[in-house]
Amino acid sequence: MSKKEGRIKLVFVTSNEHKIKEAMEILGKWNIQLEGSHVTKIEVQDDCIERISRYAAIQAYNEIKKPLIVEDSGLFIKALNGFPGPYSSYVQRKIGNDGIVKLMENISDRRAYFKASLTCICGQYVKTFNGIVHGSISEEPRGREGFGFDPIFIPEGYDRTMAELGERIKNTISHRYRAFTQLAEWVSRQKPLKP
Amino acid sequence: MSKKEGRIKLVFVTSNEHKIKEAMEILGKWNIQLEGSHVTKIEVQDDCIERISRYAAIQAYNEIKKPLIVEDSGLFIKALNGFPGPYSSYVQRKIGNDGIVKLMENISDRRAYFKASLTCICGQYVKTFNGIVHGSISEEPRGREGFGFDPIFIPEGYDRTMAELGERIKNTISHRYRAFTQLAEWVSRQKPLKP
Repeated sequence: MSKKEGRIKLVFVTSNEHKIKEAMEILGKWNIQLEGSHVTKIEVQDDCIERISRYAAIQAYNEIKKPLIVEDSGLFIKALNGFPGPYSSYVQRKIGNDGIVKLMENISDRRAYFKASLTCICGQYVKTFNGIVHGSISEEPRGREGFGFDPIFIPEGYDRTMAELGERIKNTISHRYRAFTQLAEWVSRQKPLKP
Repeated sequence: MSKKEGRIKLVFVTSNEHKIKEAMEILGKWNIQLEGSHVTKIEVQDDCIERISRYAAIQAYNEIKKPLIVEDSGLFIKALNGFPGPYSSYVQRKIGNDGIVKLMENISDRRAYFKASLTCICGQYVKTFNGIVHGSISEEPRGREGFGFDPIFIPEGYDRTMAELGERIKNTISHRYRAFTQLAEWVSRQKPLKP
């Protein structure tokens, strides 16, 4: 990571602009600067998002040879054996929140969690940070903020969905918040390293 | 492909024993011998099964350097925007046929198709053969033969599901049958080639 002018630069390999925006807000108070990149993110099919995130990070690093991060995340619903899990973004595009709500009709166990797996490659390090937020699936979509499954996910300790709570609250409790702050703390402990 | 003793040998890169068994039955009358392999099949996340199949084939070929085939297939349901598509095997494991039937409740457009995309790498060739079978989603799972989504798929021209029709009929009309027979015809036209 380069600490030129006091800011640490990391390439964020993603084509999801929501994620870049969220990450920048979360990292705002930290000394880290994120850059977008056009490098291809190769996502393998795997039930384990840590492996997806690490594989993508290694492939991207082999291409651009710069300090970088890759994030993979998903919604894991207990009564659906972890579905949609690593394929959350595909499932969101295809059947949406209404599809999940339909699958959960007449199911009383509503437990679910969001998990983010963030891999950072920098110098000799390949580090993965996981963040989880537990909660439950709502009876119907509610709220307009956030993106993805936010309108059907009620975080533990709240009675409103992520989309109703809004970004300010979301970005202090979310799976991505928890993964990114671990990354930030780790990065801030490192000495400047050559990429 | 090696034509030693008159049989052409191709490695079939898959960990799905149902698929090996089906392919062997389909190719029974052709001069092709399939071998299993322990090489890792790297499946990327992509809405397009041709790209998944080609990427996996190239990765496997780089590892084993032998003539090989890789198959990727999926069930594409029109009213669900193509879901479960390339993630059919994951979706089958997680929500099963009952999950799909639940998603299709109160939906009158039941149209769907199975598609198989088969990539063969051999000598200087990277060839992909696609097979499609059109049909519809049944109101509930029926039948015990076959595997995967066979119990909820009624092929066009029939009133029974693939699982009710049984393997003998399935293996003359299925997406895999259509892809494998194109492969077999192509292979039989080639001169013996070094891998």
